Parts: sequence; structure tokens; C-alpha cells
Amino acid sequence: MDAHRERVYRRIVESALEEDLGLRGDITSQLVLTGREGPGRAVILSREPGVLAGRRLAELTFQTIDPALEVDFRFQDGQTFPENAEIAQIQGSPASILMAERVALNFLGRLSGIATLTRRFVEALEGTGAVLLDTRKTTPGLRLAEKDAVRAGGGSNHRFGLFDGILIKDNHIRWAGGVGEALKRARLQAPHGLKIEIEVSNLKELQEALDYGADIVLLDNFDLEDIEEAMQRIPPGVRVEVSGGVTLENVRQIALLGVHYISVGALTHSARWINFSLEVAE
Amino acid sequence: MDAHRERVYRRIVESALEEDLGLRGDITSQLVLTGREGPGRAVILSREPGVLAGRRLAELTFQTIDPALEVDFRFQDGQTFPENAEIAQIQGSPASILMAERVALNFLGRLSGIATLTRRFVEALEGTGAVLLDTRKTTPGLRLAEKDAVRAGGGSNHRFGLFDGILIKDNHIRWAGGVGEALKRARLQAPHGLKIEIEVSNLKELQEALDYGADIVLLDNFDLEDIEEAMQRIPPGVRVEVSGGVTLENVRQIALLGVHYISVGALTHSARWINFSLEVAE
Amino acid sequence: MDAHRERVYRRIVESALEEDLGLRGDITSQLVLTGREGPGRAVILSREPGVLAGRRLAELTFQTIDPALEVDFRFQDGQTFPENAEIAQIQGSPASILMAERVALNFLGRLSGIATLTRRFVEALEGTGAVLLDTRKTTPGLRLAEKDAVRAGGGSNHRFGLFDGILIKDNHIRWAGGVGEALKRARLQAPHGLKIEIEVSNLKELQEALDYGADIVLLDNFDLEDIEEAMQRIPPGVRVEVSGGVTLENVRQIALLGVHYISVGALTHSARWINFSLEVAE
Amino acid sequence: MDAHRERVYRRIVESALEEDLGLRGDITSQLVLTGREGPGRAVILSREPGVLAGRRLAELTFQTIDPALEVDFRFQDGQTFPENAEIAQIQGSPASILMAERVALNFLGRLSGIATLTRRFVEALEGTGAVLLDTRKTTPGLRLAEKDAVRAGGGSNHRFGLFDGILIKDNHIRWAGGVGEALKRARLQAPHGLKIEIEVSNLKELQEALDYGADIVLLDNFDLEDIEEAMQRIPPGVRVEVSGGVTLENVRQIALLGVHYISVGALTHSARWINFSLEVAE
Amino acid sequence: MDAHRERVYRRIVESALEEDLGLRGDITSQLVLTGREGPGRAVILSREPGVLAGRRLAELTFQTIDPALEVDFRFQDGQTFPENAEIAQIQGSPASILMAERVALNFLGRLSGIATLTRRFVEALEGTGAVLLDTRKTTPGLRLAEKDAVRAGGGSNHRFGLFDGILIKDNHIRWAGGVGEALKRARLQAPHGLKIEIEVSNLKELQEALDYGADIVLLDNFDLEDIEEAMQRIPPGVRVEVSGGVTLENVRQIALLGVHYISVGALTHSARWINFSLEVAE
Amino acid sequence: MDAHRERVYRRIVESALEEDLGLRGDITSQLVLTGREGPGRAVILSREPGVLAGRRLAELTFQTIDPALEVDFRFQDGQTFPENAEIAQIQGSPASILMAERVALNFLGRLSGIATLTRRFVEALEGTGAVLLDTRKTTPGLRLAEKDAVRAGGGSNHRFGLFDGILIKDNHIRWAGGVGEALKRARLQAPHGLKIEIEVSNLKELQEALDYGADIVLLDNFDLEDIEEAMQRIPPGVRVEVSGGVTLENVRQIALLGVHYISVGALTHSARWINFSLEVAE
Repeated sequence: MDAHRERVYRRIVESALEEDLGLRGDITSQLVLTGREGPGRAVILSREPGVLAGRRLAELTFQTIDPALEVDFRFQDGQTFPENAEIAQIQGSPASILMAERVALNFLGRLSGIATLTRRFVEALEGTGAVLLDTRKTTPGLRLAEKDAVRAGGGSNHRFGLFDGILIKDNHIRWAGGVGEALKRARLQAPHGLKIEIEVSNLKELQEALDYGADIVLLDNFDLEDIEEAMQRIPPGVRVEVSGGVTLENVRQIALLGVHYISVGALTHSARWINFSLEVAE
Repeated sequence: MDAHRERVYRRIVESALEEDLGLRGDITSQLVLTGREGPGRAVILSREPGVLAGRRLAELTFQTIDPALEVDFRFQDGQTFPENAEIAQIQGSPASILMAERVALNFLGRLSGIATLTRRFVEALEGTGAVLLDTRKTTPGLRLAEKDAVRAGGGSNHRFGLFDGILIKDNHIRWAGGVGEALKRARLQAPHGLKIEIEVSNLKELQEALDYGADIVLLDNFDLEDIEEAMQRIPPGVRVEVSGGVTLENVRQIALLGVHYISVGALTHSARWINFSLEVAE
Repeated sequence: MDAHRERVYRRIVESALEEDLGLRGDITSQLVLTGREGPGRAVILSREPGVLAGRRLAELTFQTIDPALEVDFRFQDGQTFPENAEIAQIQGSPASILMAERVALNFLGRLSGIATLTRRFVEALEGTGAVLLDTRKTTPGLRLAEKDAVRAGGGSNHRFGLFDGILIKDNHIRWAGGVGEALKRARLQAPHGLKIEIEVSNLKELQEALDYGADIVLLDNFDLEDIEEAMQRIPPGVRVEVSGGVTLENVRQIALLGVHYISVGALTHSARWINFSLEVAE
Repeated sequence: MDAHRERVYRRIVESALEEDLGLRGDITSQLVLTGREGPGRAVILSREPGVLAGRRLAELTFQTIDPALEVDFRFQDGQTFPENAEIAQIQGSPASILMAERVALNFLGRLSGIATLTRRFVEALEGTGAVLLDTRKTTPGLRLAEKDAVRAGGGSNHRFGLFDGILIKDNHIRWAGGVGEALKRARLQAPHGLKIEIEVSNLKELQEALDYGADIVLLDNFDLEDIEEAMQRIPPGVRVEVSGGVTLENVRQIALLGVHYISVGALTHSARWINFSLEVAE
Repeated sequence: MDAHRERVYRRIVESALEEDLGLRGDITSQLVLTGREGPGRAVILSREPGVLAGRRLAELTFQTIDPALEVDFRFQDGQTFPENAEIAQIQGSPASILMAERVALNFLGRLSGIATLTRRFVEALEGTGAVLLDTRKTTPGLRLAEKDAVRAGGGSNHRFGLFDGILIKDNHIRWAGGVGEALKRARLQAPHGLKIEIEVSNLKELQEALDYGADIVLLDNFDLEDIEEAMQRIPPGVRVEVSGGVTLENVRQIALLGVHYISVGALTHSARWINFSLEVAE
Repeated sequence: MDAHRERVYRRIVESALEEDLGLRGDITSQLVLTGREGPGRAVILSREPGVLAGRRLAELTFQTIDPALEVDFRFQDGQTFPENAEIAQIQGSPASILMAERVALNFLGRLSGIATLTRRFVEALEGTGAVLLDTRKTTPGLRLAEKDAVRAGGGSNHRFGLFDGILIKDNHIRWAGGVGEALKRARLQAPHGLKIEIEVSNLKELQEALDYGADIVLLDNFDLEDIEEAMQRIPPGVRVEVSGGVTLENVRQIALLGVHYISVGALTHSARWINFSLEVAE
């Protein structure tokens, strides 16, 4: 966990806890637990197999509530776990454990869901050389965590926001007055460390993009035939990304056409949560 | 939109935009759009049918970026829309529209997904009298918005956090030393405006809960037969919630047994995004 | 001190210190203390008897200024102390101690004042079975701390805000068009874990409230005679709160009429500060 | 209202509303008011006579909740009002008015209480030439507002925090090693725009303070006789403040001894709230 | 001014004002101005010639203090102005104008200083084709504003932070174990939209960088002779940046060697402020 | 380092790091360093002689990024260092060190620049008895740190903001209607711990200021002759500050005329950065 990420994660955890605890805190534990129970022990169990992500957020959730809690994870982010695995053990004040439980499981469930789906795509791509990318279709407020989950699953990250990459999309092209004009403007003043990527919708636009010197072309919603045709026209120095309509069923076929990157919004917007539960241990 | 909600939403929008824009802002639009394009017009289109939610967050996203943008939605939260419907129209600076696009669509996609799934459950329950409830299995940071989406879909909200309801769960019972002891403690000092709800795992625990005066019992992962048996034992003044293993397939059957509430985590944790896109309009 | 409260308290302390120190900090100590004094020892003394509250806020004030300060309280929140008692001892940098002094004493003075007044009401109610409640008439920004002080004094808390309880007041009734209409609307969609409480101003409104199924009735500014009459009409399942015009003189009489709750705004809005001082110890 | 104050006040209002509304907002109004009531009209009434303070905070409370509310105050801060006066009128959405009601009244009640008590001291001092000062014994989080209330009552403000004045107190003297040493250190590096004030406990310390060139001496807990004696020793260029044990009964006597400033902690820490209520108007 | 920048600027202005006003606000204006002066008029004058930058921050400073102030600038960012030019006119409350004055001038002075120095470098480069770049040697907290000032002066921006560009520096190379190893690692997983830039200290490192496929090479502290030699070895596809020891005297000579970029830390870290003053106008 | 300053410094560091790291963090180190390098050692070297300032901010920068870093400074703020001195040594994770490097050096460079320039003025004043003061012409967001740097260089601080001193400037005088009127108003209600300073532009205004009882007069842009004349007219109890047009060349001459304070905006607005670099150590 790098030192910067740690700091961003703390803020995410703070705001998730605030949302669940409000001003009044956990009424039920205040009533039902006496505070004299002595340290308790609980485990987080997987209710289905998957690939872990969100471990650090879950740890921080418990420790933000109560720095005295001992949290001991048995799996790393990126590791696969079977059904009914003991993912982690937590020891300390029962009231603290239950106060953090739901938020911690919400992080693990959502992020492991993303890692697990990503892993399936990565396995489908094995040996093809194509790199699997995520998109900016992430949950507002959780982009860093969700992109980390994609990497835990074995994928790579597209740009993190509008601030760290140039991607000229269909709407830019429309308002700029065409592929050529958009590229011309971009090349004029592009920050010197950034490549210029442009989204094209058909072979004609692709040709224009190549003519005007794009560094990367994004073939948007091309069918297999058109991708094949495109790959023949694109010179070696230009990188190719495919996006739109990519599924677990067709991703390998697309990759075998030689494209360099395949980006899949579903990694973050359609991953199903993995089911975890927290149980008191004897 | 009530005045309080409006203020919370503004904060959610601020932080989502911050995440996407960072310090540097939208590099692509800075390069490709000249700022002299004059006002543009774009529409948000539905790529599939659904139930709308997240409208106010989307509006605020555009207007936070640029108060001069005119945003005109054609559907209200809770309304159904067909495929390819024009959901909204936005007019103003093209650069501003494109800066807000992705964040606005992320809100609409996720929240309309929740409303759409909720609506399907609500329709399955029609005429049964059972109330559909959400859970606290929401995305960290978006609880208010996701619970609002559940209501847009026709569902009702369970408690919003640990701060506004008493729900004694299995782990509380374990650490308190049993159903009876937990209820005894809770009744002793329960805030006077709150009912006491307790989760029970079997008929024996149910009986103990009834003996110790629970206001609401949550039958957790009961099968249909046990729910039926439970309903016969529960006296009229006690309310009954069912949770665990509820699907679109079995929800109506459960409801027909006469339970008052059915809570479904999937409403928020497993809803698929609805696909929207923003297109430049002539 | 539960883990959630601790976090909220830290924020309150931060903002109180910010207010007192501004950007420039403590000019006097910077001038008069050399930083080479070596560790000093000071004590907090009570200048009058009372019931302690605010201990944790005072501790955090000293430790936020300087984590190296050792703060050792001799009394717990809720304990009574005599005049001239040594409430706490603080050791460490003299400049740090003096920088925190005023803010720490402001917390202790105000909150112990609330606990002390509450204790007097609680003693007046002894043996009657009536529960003493606070109100939302708290100092803006200090609600959690003031409600904790009420509990330190032996009282109980009414709702913490508009977010965790239903209380239909006279103005709601006016705008809704009457007691019956207001209750009908509330019952239709009331969150399932919350009871419905309604404020009534006379016996006629009380009857309407009972007819429309209120869970709790609040008799607002009833005289003793009317409370007595009301108690005869109210069926066993309905809880009764009395509010308005309650003083140390009449609170026991009211309680002896059998009401369940008595709420007293004066606990928080009219408590006199308890006088504490910090003295350098030999 | 100066432009800076306005900005600080907005923050105070924001945090007070947050405390009362939490994430969930006003449950009661959501249930009982339909949102179709049309604009309502309410008035704030005084339940006892007093001096107004907190007007701007109350206005901002209503308008932060809902900018469409029209708030029309009939009295200015500093004006006296009789019992049952119509202090203000508010028009707009009933739900918005009721959401803001309690917080607005909490500001008015507490701050008008301070202004009213201050006014009584000021009247007792009339014609004596002595200036009435407040202290730093204010409610954490509300110092600016409470000091403004003191001015509304006709008093003046002592320093606002540790950052804008030099006041060497008994504990500084103890740790510095005496009045003379403390003053010597302070004079060496005192910021050039600030006077040096020192608290003395007896006539001997007073003499030392005068010998070492204090600009202002604070006679702490001196009895009348000692103040009289002190005034004879103090040369014309040195200003005199009296503090400790000052009451409405003895304040005029003290002033008549010729002291320049009298500071009274009770103005902020022992003022009783003024009772206001909000009523729906026909 | 793009919509994102506007939002970041507002935050910078808020925190600069907070620093100058603290809790107590502008004591002098509170004392000396009565609030009944009626609207005043002031002008901002240049005390020396220069290139303007910081206009929007200055405008926002006045309008954050008091939205009723009318601020009318006569020059745009990037325009040159002579000595004693009327840069802007402000009308409205005198107290508001004086409260904002210093902070507004601090922005203008510092940022116009950067724009003015940048312009001199840009003029020295005229016709050479070399692009002038800034660095990350900016004032903590003002990076966006200072980089905007560089562009106002005619320069271009290097990366904004560690988050939007890859630049392998000498210390990375040392810890990675050499130029080749560092580049190998970077190429393995470099985000697909970013070019890889590496800093080299001599011709040997340059050769290694070229061998391992750097996209951009930064010649650090090369003398003219070595730059010339380097340019002969570097193939056409690779971009060249020069940094270190660049002055107004030698920048043109360097550019004439054909390098693409010249980065100059002095633009932000050694620019002298431009002297502006605010004067009351008749 | 006093406890208050420490807390303010942490916030400054947090926001400087946020600016440099954004959401994505340090891409280069993530790519090039494996995280398995083991602890590294680096030193901060001076590239030129100077006076140190900013040490605590630099320490906090490293430790905020990574609390495990050991930072060991060899010089204190205010100490002079030669060229090529080892200012500090840092040990720990190479990625953490490089993530903090630029921000830490930016603090040191800017603040040591201020301390170094201040020292030259202080040396020029040696033995004259005149006190060197800074102004409010500081970098927005860094006022506390820059004023601390002035003290590290041996200067003293003028007021920190508008909140802790009274200084009636030319524009106040204009709008108030003259020197006399402005002073009359100020004296009427001036906070009792603050002296009244007024800026005068000529001998006539000076006389008026003296007649109306100013505590301190600021001679603004007076030439040497006029200062000399002024000193003869000013009675002993009044303090004299000179400002405007002060340079290293003329500062001693001014001081020798017997003025008490000389304030120099250039200390903060025109100090050149001191050049530091961070190098990996064997």
C-alpha cells in the first residue's frame, strides 16, 4: 500500500462511517452491549468464491472506529478465495466490531466483486497480449478504490480522470468540426508527456485519425470484421484500443485480432457484489 | 426535492467532480474546444428502458460545473422511460457539458439501475400489502442517493444508518448472551421514540423474542414453511420482516404468507446500471 | 467512551481550539514562557460542588494541543464532587497547558452545569418511575456533548435531531389540517422502526390523537388537573410525555400522576456553568 | 453586517443544521406535509421582554435551508422588545420553515439572553465612564456570535482569543517566576501594536507590575477597599481593568472607584435564554 | 476561465481570506469606517510595467468578501500594461474594498511577476520553435494559479504534479539500478496514454536511455557542447527537453541547437513581484 | 515548535501534498520502484549558502507521506549554512522519499530564501536599535510560515492579519474624511489591548496624527530629510515606523535617524529561493 493511497483511503473510510453513524452513533450496540463484555473475536467469511479486493479499506474501517482492534487478514488483494473461507479475523471490543461491520463488508463486497469479474476477463485474454482496461464508469466517490480493484483482478487502468490523459471522444469531434480539426488542435498544444488518443466510429474516421497523427486510436463499437479491417490499415507505431459491446464471450476473439487494449465499462458498473459475512467466533 | 436533501446532494456532486477533474481539469476539452464554439445542445438518451432516478444529482453536476448551463429533464424520478428516449436536454458551453458528462451519467446509470430493479420487485408484490424495504448494503458515500432511488422505484426505506433505528442482529445476540438477555437490556433504556426490532434465525429464537416483548421480528433466512409457521405464532401487535434469500421469483410467495416487510439487499448491491449516453444534438 | 463519540468529540475540540488560537496562536505564552521551563504540573479545581460532565472533551483539548501532556482525571462523568476538589491533574509543557486551559474549562463548566441541574431533577423524580428527558433546545454545535451531559446527570435523551424520531408538533398539525389528518398521513408511510409521537394542546386534541392511533402523546403545557384527566383517558398501550412549564418545584407532582416521560428544555438552555479553575501546582 | 462576519456566520449555521438534520433530514415533515400545502406564513413571538441578538444567524438558518423563504425581522440586534412581540415573519414552504425552526430559535434564545443580561449591566454602569467587557468564557464554537451579542447589549469586547491580545495571567506569572520577570520578558519582544496587560492578585503584585511598565493592570478578585487603594497608586497612563466577583449588585460601586474596564464572565456563561416561539399565522 | 478552474480558484481565495481575517475580521475598518459612507470607488494602479496574471483571483477576492462589489478590469491576463496604468476599478462598500485589498494585490503581484518573467523568456525564444516549460518548483498551495500565470506569459506547462506524467529522475535511476533497468520497468506497465520521459546527466546515460526506448529525454545540466553532441545522437522520434542552468542570457543559444523543450524553475521560484497599489478614486 | 503552530503546519503540508499527488499519486515511483528496494538513504544538500527556515514543514512533509521515514536535520531554523552543506538526512522507503521530495524542497527553498534576505537586513541594522518588521505582502496560504521565516532570519513580525492590530492606512483616511476624523473614530471604541497606528504621507498629516493621539505613526515613503524632521516633532511616548522604498542600501541610514521600526515588504515578496537538492546517499 503506497503512502499516498493510504491517505486517500482514510478519507473515504471517514466519510463512509460518518454516513452510517451520523451524530447519534450505533444505538443498538449502546443498548445491548454493556461495554464489559471483554474482547471478542469475529471472523469474516466468504459466502462464495472470488478474488479479494478492498482489504485495506476494510482494515481501516475497523481501525478508524477503534485503533485497539486487531485485524488480521488471511488473504491479500488479488488472491482467490473459495466459498466459506475465513478471510479475516478481528479481535477487540464487540461494540467496535459491530459498529464497523457493515461498512467494512460493503467495501469488501463491492470491490471484490469488481476484482472477481475482472479476473474472468483477464483469464479469457490469457496469452493474447491484449491489455484489459477499465473506464471512468465508476461509482462517484470510489474511483481510486475501484480502479485498484481492477488491478487486483489483473486488469490495468485507463486514465483516472479528465486530468491525466487526452481522449478525444465523439462529442469533442462533433463540436470541434471533425476528426482532423480536433486532432490538429490537440497536437498544437498537447502537454508534452501525454499521448493523443481519439475515439473513431467507423473506418473513414479511423483513416482521418491516422492521417492527422493520432498516437492511439479507440475503435468504438466496431464489429469484428471492421476491427480486422482496421488492424490492417493501422501502422505499427499507433496503438489500438477497442471499446463497446465487449463481453466475456467475445473478448478473446477481439484480442486475437491483435488489438493492444480492450476497455470494458462493465468491470466497474456491472460487477455483482461478492457476499461476505461477519460471524462471532467461539 | 426537499431543502435538506438538496444540500447533501451538492456535497456528493462536489466530491464526485473533484475526483474526475483533479487539479488540472479537463485536458482534452482545453485542447480541442476553443471556447468560441458558442452554446451547444446535447441530449441524454436512454439505451434501454427503465425507471429514472438520480435526476437531481445529474442536474446539479452540470450546474456545479457551470451555473449557466440549462438542463431540462423530460422525466421525473420514478417515471418509466422506453429505450432511446430523450431523457434530458442540456444547453450551454460545450466544454462545460463535456466536463460534467461522465459524472452525471454515472449518477443516472447507477441510481436508475436501482430504481428499475426495485420497480420489478414492487410489481411482483402488487396487491399483497407487503412493504418492500432496502438495507444498509449501499455503496459507501452514496447511501442517501441510493435510498432515494429505492423510493423512486416504489420501495420503502429501512433505517438509514446505525443512528436511527434499533435492530438487534445475530452477533449482538451472541455477545449479549441470548435473545432474551439482549431484549431485556434494550427495553431497559430504549429511546422512547424507537421500536425494538430483533433478528431471529429459527422458531425457537422467535418464541423467545416474542416472550421478551420485541416490537418487530426479523425472520432471517427462514424457508417458506418456517415463515408460515412463524406467522401463526406471532400475535397481531408484532410486526414481521423477512430477509435473506429473497428473489424476484419467490418474493410474492413470501408476501402472500402475510408478512409486513420484506427487505432485499440486492436492490442496492446487485442492481445493474442502466445505460445512458450523451449526444450532441443538431 | 464509545469509538464513534470519540471521533465526533475530536472534531468539536479542533474547532473550539481554532476559534481561540486563530492563525497567530497564544501570543502571551510565546512571550512570557521560554520553552525551557521544564515540565509543569497544574490542577483543575472545582470552585463549587456539582456533577461532572465533559471530562473526555477536556482531556482531548489538552491532548490535541500537545499529545505529550499527561492528563489525569480524579472523577468520572456523572460523579458528584465537592467544592475545592482536585478534579484533574495535568503535567507537561507549561505553554501547552495554558494554551488549552480556557477551552478545556469552558467545556467542563458548561457541561457540568447541565449534569448538575439534571441531577437535581432526577433526584426530585426518585421513585416515581417517570423518565426525565432533554429537548433539542441545545447550543448549536454542542448537541451531542450536551445530551451526553444530560445522561451523565442521570437523565435520558429525547431524539437527537429531526432525523431519528417522529414528533408531530402544533405547527405540523396546523399546516396538515388537524390532528387526525396529520396522524393519518404519518401512519401511511412511517418508517417501520419509529413510533409516532404527537403533541396535543388540550383534551380534545388528545382524544383525536388517541382515535387516530398515536403511539406516544405529548401533553404540551397541560396544568396538573388536565394531566390527571388525560391519564384517565389514555389507554395502557400509549405512552405519555409531559412538556412545558416543568420546574424543580412541580416536577414530582407531575410524575406522581403516572406520566412516563417529562421533558425539560431548561436542562440544556438554562443550566448555570459550574466554576472550575486551573492552578499551577507546587 | 460586515462581509467577513457574514461568511463566518454561514459556517456556524451550516454546522448547526447538519447536527439537527443528519443524513436523513426531517422525517416528520416528510411524512406529515405533502409538499402541496402552498406557501405558509409563520411568526416568531417573544414570550418575555428582552434585547435582541442573533438576528442574522436566524435569517441565515431559514435561508440556508431554503433560499426561497422570505424572512422579515421587525427588530434589529440591540433593540429591546416587549413580551409577545412579533419579532419576525417568515413566508414560504411550510416544510422548510419547520426544518429551520428549532435551530433558528436556539440562536435567538441563547444570544438574546446574552444581550439582555449585558444590557442590565450596561444600565447599571450608566454615566460612570467604565466600559463593560466580556471574557473568553464563551460556548465553544460560538465565540464570535456571543461576542457580537455582548455588543448588541451595549458591552464591549475583550480580546477574541489568544491571538489578538497579551494578557499575562496568574499561571503565566507562576511559571515565569514572578510579575517582574514575566513583564520583562513580554516587553522584550511584544508585537509593536499590542499593549501589555497583566493580572495581579494583590497590591504587592500591582506595585511590581507598575514598576515593570505594564500598560494595563487587571485587578483580579480585589475587594472594594483594595480597588480604592490600587486606584491611588496607579499613575494616569496605565489603564485599569477589574475582574472577578462582579455582580449586578456591586458593579456600579466598582465603577465609581474610577476603573476603566470591568470584565464579567457571567455575560456569556450565565445568561438565561430568552424564550421565543414560532407560530403558524393565519 | 473554465468552469473547473473557477471552482479551484474560489477555494484558494477562501483560504487566503481566512488567513487575513481570522475570526475577528478587519478591526481597523470596523473602527474607522461607519458603514454609512455610501459606495466608494477605488482603482488598482500598476507601479511598474508588466504582463498581467491573477485577474480572476483578484476579482473573486473582492466578490467573495462582498458579492455587491463591482469589479471592472481593464486588462486581460496575458496583456502587457505600462507603469501607472489603471488596471481595474472597484466600486461598492469602502469597508469591503479595504478588507479585500491586500489579498487581491498579493495575488496580482505574485502572479503578474511570474507572467512578466515568463514573457521575457518567451521573447528570447521567439522564432526558435523551442517551447518554454515551467516546473513543479511552485509555491505550495498555488500551483494551479502559478502554472496559469506561466501560460499568461506565453509559456507552456510541464506536468502539474506526480499524478499526470512520467518523469524518471536521477534519484529514481539510482534506486532502480540504472537507466536501462528503470526504463525497462516503466515500459512494462506504463499507463497507455502517457509518454515515458527520463532525465539523463551525461552522454553515456543518454545513449542508454535511447537504447531502452525513452519517448522523451531530459538533458539535465548539460553544457552547450554536450547538448549539441546529444542532438546528433537522438533519433527523430524522440523529444528533447533541456533543464538546469538556463538563464535569459543563454536560453536562445540553447534553443537554436534544436531542442524541443526548455524548462526553467526560475519562472515560478525566482520571479519578482510586480508592484500594484489600490487608491481611492475621486 | 509550539503546539499550535504544529497543527497549522500539518494542514499546510496536507494541502501541498494533495496538490502534487492528486488522486492518482506518484505514477513514476509506482512504475520504477518495486517496493522491494529496502530502506534507502538520501541527503538534502544546499547548493548555495544561506539561513535555514522551513525545517519543520519539510520534516512534516516526509512524515505525512510516510510516518516510518526517519528525518534528521543537521541545522536549526535560523542557523546559517555554507554551500554544499548536508542539511538533512532521510532514511526509509525510496518511493516515500521521492514522493515527498519536491514539496519538502519547495518549502525549504522559499522559506530559507526569506530568512536569508531578512538576515542581510538585520545585519545592516546591527547596533542601531531599530526593529526590522515584515508586512502582510505574503504568499496567499503561507502567511504563518513566511512570518516564521522572517523571525528565523532575525526580524520581527508586524500584525499577522487584519484581525490582530489597528493600522489606519491612506485609504481609510480618505474615506473617513481625514487623519483627525479617522483617529477620533478609532479612539472612541478601540479594543483596549490594541495600540492605534496610523500611516501618514507627509509632515502635515504627521502633525495631525500627533494632535489626535496616535500611539504609533507610520511614515510612508518619507525621504531621509523628512524622516529627520519628523523625528524632531514626535514626542517620546509615540513609536515610529518607517515603510516604503527601504533597501539594503539605505536601511541603516534610516535606522540611524532613530526610528523604532522599519517594515520591508521585500522580505517576503522579493526573496529569491535558496537552491537545495535531494541526493541518494551511498
